[in-house]
Amino acid sequence: MQIIKKIRKKTTFSHMIKVVVLGAGNVGYHLFSAMHKHPQINVVQWYNKSISPIEPFEDQTVITTDINTITTADIYLICVADSAIAQLSNQLSHRKGIIAHTAGSIAMEQLNTHKHYGVFYPLQSFSKQREIDFSNLPFCLEASDQQSLNKLEQLAVYLSQNIHRVNSQQRKTLHIAAVFVNNFTNHLYAIGEKICEENDLPFAILEPLIIETAKKIEQLSPKDAQTGPALRNDQKTIDNHLVQLSPNLEKLYNNLTQSIQQHYGQ
Amino acid sequence: MQIIKKIRKKTTFSHMIKVVVLGAGNVGYHLFSAMHKHPQINVVQWYNKSISPIEPFEDQTVITTDINTITTADIYLICVADSAIAQLSNQLSHRKGIIAHTAGSIAMEQLNTHKHYGVFYPLQSFSKQREIDFSNLPFCLEASDQQSLNKLEQLAVYLSQNIHRVNSQQRKTLHIAAVFVNNFTNHLYAIGEKICEENDLPFAILEPLIIETAKKIEQLSPKDAQTGPALRNDQKTIDNHLVQLSPNLEKLYNNLTQSIQQHYGQ
Repeated sequence: MQIIKKIRKKTTFSHMIKVVVLGAGNVGYHLFSAMHKHPQINVVQWYNKSISPIEPFEDQTVITTDINTITTADIYLICVADSAIAQLSNQLSHRKGIIAHTAGSIAMEQLNTHKHYGVFYPLQSFSKQREIDFSNLPFCLEASDQQSLNKLEQLAVYLSQNIHRVNSQQRKTLHIAAVFVNNFTNHLYAIGEKICEENDLPFAILEPLIIETAKKIEQLSPKDAQTGPALRNDQKTIDNHLVQLSPNLEKLYNNLTQSIQQHYGQ
Repeated sequence: MQIIKKIRKKTTFSHMIKVVVLGAGNVGYHLFSAMHKHPQINVVQWYNKSISPIEPFEDQTVITTDINTITTADIYLICVADSAIAQLSNQLSHRKGIIAHTAGSIAMEQLNTHKHYGVFYPLQSFSKQREIDFSNLPFCLEASDQQSLNKLEQLAVYLSQNIHRVNSQQRKTLHIAAVFVNNFTNHLYAIGEKICEENDLPFAILEPLIIETAKKIEQLSPKDAQTGPALRNDQKTIDNHLVQLSPNLEKLYNNLTQSIQQHYGQ
C-alpha cells in the first residue's frame, strides 16, 4: 500500500535540513515531534511499516508504508527495532544523503553499504505518554566521514545543547550503563512498589525519596552520595532486613550489598 | 560541659508546640531548620553530645551538650544513630511530654519506659549540603496512645501535607523498600558513573536519563514503566552486555535480569 498525500510545505531556509524518519516507535515518534516543531528542520516524509501510528500525522508530513517510495533527503533517520535496522538500511540503496540509525547498541558498520552513514543516538528513555525536554537531551553522534558528522551535528544542534561524539565501542558501553541506571533502577522501584503493596502502604510514600535520590546526582557524585547499611557495614541492620525478604529478594539484597562493599574496597 | 544561653523567645500562640531536638546529624539538622522557621513550632532546646554541629545555632535556640539540662517540652525528638536511641531515651526519665524517635528501622517499643512515646519518621534521604522540600515530605507516625498520636500529627501537619500512620512492622518494611529505591539505586548510578569513567565519557551524559527514569513513576507505575532486554527476553543483547562486564558486575547484571524476569512471571 502506498500512501502519499500533499501537505503544505515549510518555507525553505538556506540551512534547512531535510529529514526522512523511518519508524514510529517511541524514538521515531519523539524525534518526529521535536523536529517537526523546529523551523529549520523539514521532515519531508515519515515511513512506518504499518499505517496506524503515522496516520494521525498526515497533515504534518508525507506519510508512507512503502519503502520504495522514500523521497530524497539530507538525512534518513532509522528508528526501528535493533533487529530490523540492517534489513531496512539495505532497502535504502543509492542515496546521496546520510543514513543514520538511532540505536544504542548497534554498531555503525551495519550501515556501511552506504556512502555516507552514521549514528544519531538520543540517550533517553522515551514513552509516548510523556513529553521529553529535548533542550538537554544527550545526542551521541558518530559518522563514516567528517562531512556527515558535521551534518548530523547540525541537526542535533537544532534540537539540543547536549551533544557528544561517541564511537561505537563507547556507545555500546553507554548502553550498558543505561541498562543499569534506567532498566535496573526502575526494577528497584518496582520492588519498592511490591513491598509497599504487600504491607498496605501506598507506593506514593516512596516518591519523594526516589526523586530526591535521582536529583542528588546533579550536585553530588553517586560515589560520594552513597549511604546505608551496606556502606557502613551495619551487619545487624542487614541481617534484620534479610530475614524479612523472600529468597529471590534476599539474593538480590545480598548481591547489591556485596557490590557496594566491593565498590568501596571493603 | 553545660551550655545554656539566653535567646529571644518566640511569641507564644495557643497552639504552639514546644519541641526539644536531640541529635544534630542530617535528620536533626533538617528537622531543626524546618521547625525553627515555622511560627507555631518553638524549638526550645537543641541537644547534641558534641558542641560543634549546634554551636552555629546558639542565636536561634538554647543549645546544650548536657543531657541533664534538658528543658520541658511537648515533644522530645530523638534524632541520633539507631544504636544510641535506647540509651538516650533512658536518660530522659520523668517527662510529661512525648518521647519520639525519628528512625526507620527501630521499634517504637524501645521507648516504652516513658508514659507517652512514639515515632516521627521522615522518609527521605537527608544531606546537609541539600535543602529538602518539607511540604511533600512523607512523615510516618506511630504513638503509644491516641493523645500522643494527635500531638505528633499536629507537629507533622505544620511541616508537611504528606502524613501517614504507619505501625512498627510497616515502618520496618518501608525502611527495606527505602534501601532498594535509595541506597541500591544510588549504587546503580555509581556503576553507571564507573562505566562512563572507564570509557572516557562524562557521567553527566547519563543525568537526563536518571532524572527521567525517576520522574516517570509520578505518572506510571514502575511495573508498567519497565523496559529493556531483560523484560523482552532479548538474550542476544543480554549476552552482548555480559561479555563486556567484570565478573562482579556480570553477576549483578545476571541477578537483576533474573529478578526482572521473575517479577513478570517469565
